[in-house]
Amino acid sequence: MLQTDTLLNGLQILQDPQGFMYGIDAMLLADFAAPYIYKKDNLIDLGTGNGIIPLLLSTVSPASQITGLEIQKESSELAQKSVALNHLEEKIKIVNGDLKDSPSIFKKHSFKLVSSNPPYMLNSQGKLNPDDAKAIARHEVLCNLEDVICAADYLLATHGRFFMIHRPSRLAEILSLLLKYKLEPKRMRLVHPDKDTAANMLLIEARKNAAPELKVEAPLFVYSGKNIYSQEMNAITARLAKVVTE
Amino acid sequence: MLQTDTLLNGLQILQDPQGFMYGIDAMLLADFAAPYIYKKDNLIDLGTGNGIIPLLLSTVSPASQITGLEIQKESSELAQKSVALNHLEEKIKIVNGDLKDSPSIFKKHSFKLVSSNPPYMLNSQGKLNPDDAKAIARHEVLCNLEDVICAADYLLATHGRFFMIHRPSRLAEILSLLLKYKLEPKRMRLVHPDKDTAANMLLIEARKNAAPELKVEAPLFVYSGKNIYSQEMNAITARLAKVVTE
Repeated sequence: MLQTDTLLNGLQILQDPQGFMYGIDAMLLADFAAPYIYKKDNLIDLGTGNGIIPLLLSTVSPASQITGLEIQKESSELAQKSVALNHLEEKIKIVNGDLKDSPSIFKKHSFKLVSSNPPYMLNSQGKLNPDDAKAIARHEVLCNLEDVICAADYLLATHGRFFMIHRPSRLAEILSLLLKYKLEPKRMRLVHPDKDTAANMLLIEARKNAAPELKVEAPLFVYSGKNIYSQEMNAITARLAKVVTE
Repeated sequence: MLQTDTLLNGLQILQDPQGFMYGIDAMLLADFAAPYIYKKDNLIDLGTGNGIIPLLLSTVSPASQITGLEIQKESSELAQKSVALNHLEEKIKIVNGDLKDSPSIFKKHSFKLVSSNPPYMLNSQGKLNPDDAKAIARHEVLCNLEDVICAADYLLATHGRFFMIHRPSRLAEILSLLLKYKLEPKRMRLVHPDKDTAANMLLIEARKNAAPELKVEAPLFVYSGKNIYSQEMNAITARLAKVVTE
């Protein structure tokens, strides 16, 4: 039932095919954040799922300590097993808990960095099954966007960075909420399937209490032709895989 | 001192080389808005300067009536002369007035469409000369972003569309203010000098009282090589010029 991922040579990630499986999103977020992570920085990944983001960042960034917070027991156990499989117990700590309870689990303003690949979809009807692992990872069943940003604000030190991947369709809400919590949007990148298609993902970096001024970086196109990854996507995969195998 | 523009074959636009001269911005905004303008729609352009946007939209869109509102007397007189030169008095009305006074000049919710290419730059120090025509067009000397959006809200009918071009560096503020005035961001396009460079302009369409959901369209690259306009930029110029000469 469990499977070991082979996409990223060397890094072993357990996924439950019946649950939510990580995809390109986690890789893009890790690659977007990595160049802005420095030695001695500590990071917390909110809603870490099977731990893919901590696992990737532990290898492609010099972060000293990475915490993954996950509300679902099974996912957090999988994440813990992957950490052990990769002998990363010294660097990565997996915590089974609710990001809305951050104030009772973590010290205020105690992280330099926060990352998150939160559920993208609204749960407007509130009809989704709260026991459905996939629904929880994809829809705002157990937490919504404001919960994530509010937790990031609580956890981040002044001038700390918050990295998130989300959907462009919710950009207005994302930027408004970031401003509401004084997390100033500083860097954004839109991800398009190809150069002629609307964006389907967005990467954003906000800095706590920073001065306003957003840089919208050159766009990222995932494909350059039918089923052909763009040069840049290949470079990203290579960067993530390279460090892992070294 | 005055000159007739030759870029757009046929359409004669008077500009004062000592004042603020229109550039690519107005053309991009007109081309972004035109496909969403329908017969019988009336439009008001806030801060119309020398009237370039009404002049372009009067030829590339089927709008029935276009109003250009401009606070600077000289600019509004130039705009009026260009309207006369092009025999567009039936379609375009130039009003010399302050957009902040919209409630005393226009009827509430009386326009289907509002467009604006407002001053991009903050006037944080408040030290700019309020008699300097260029400073007024470029910096928020006589009005700021919220004034423009507040006027758009007053002027627009329910489900009416607001089109604006601005700087990506102020995107967070733009989207927050649009939400504040219930002008829901629905469509956005980023303009980059080329495919490898950060965006330097953004085009946005908001709809009054619409449901949330933003589409970020494929990016526009102005150049495809050194001093070579991209295919799409050439197509835009051709679209704007074509209709004018017909």
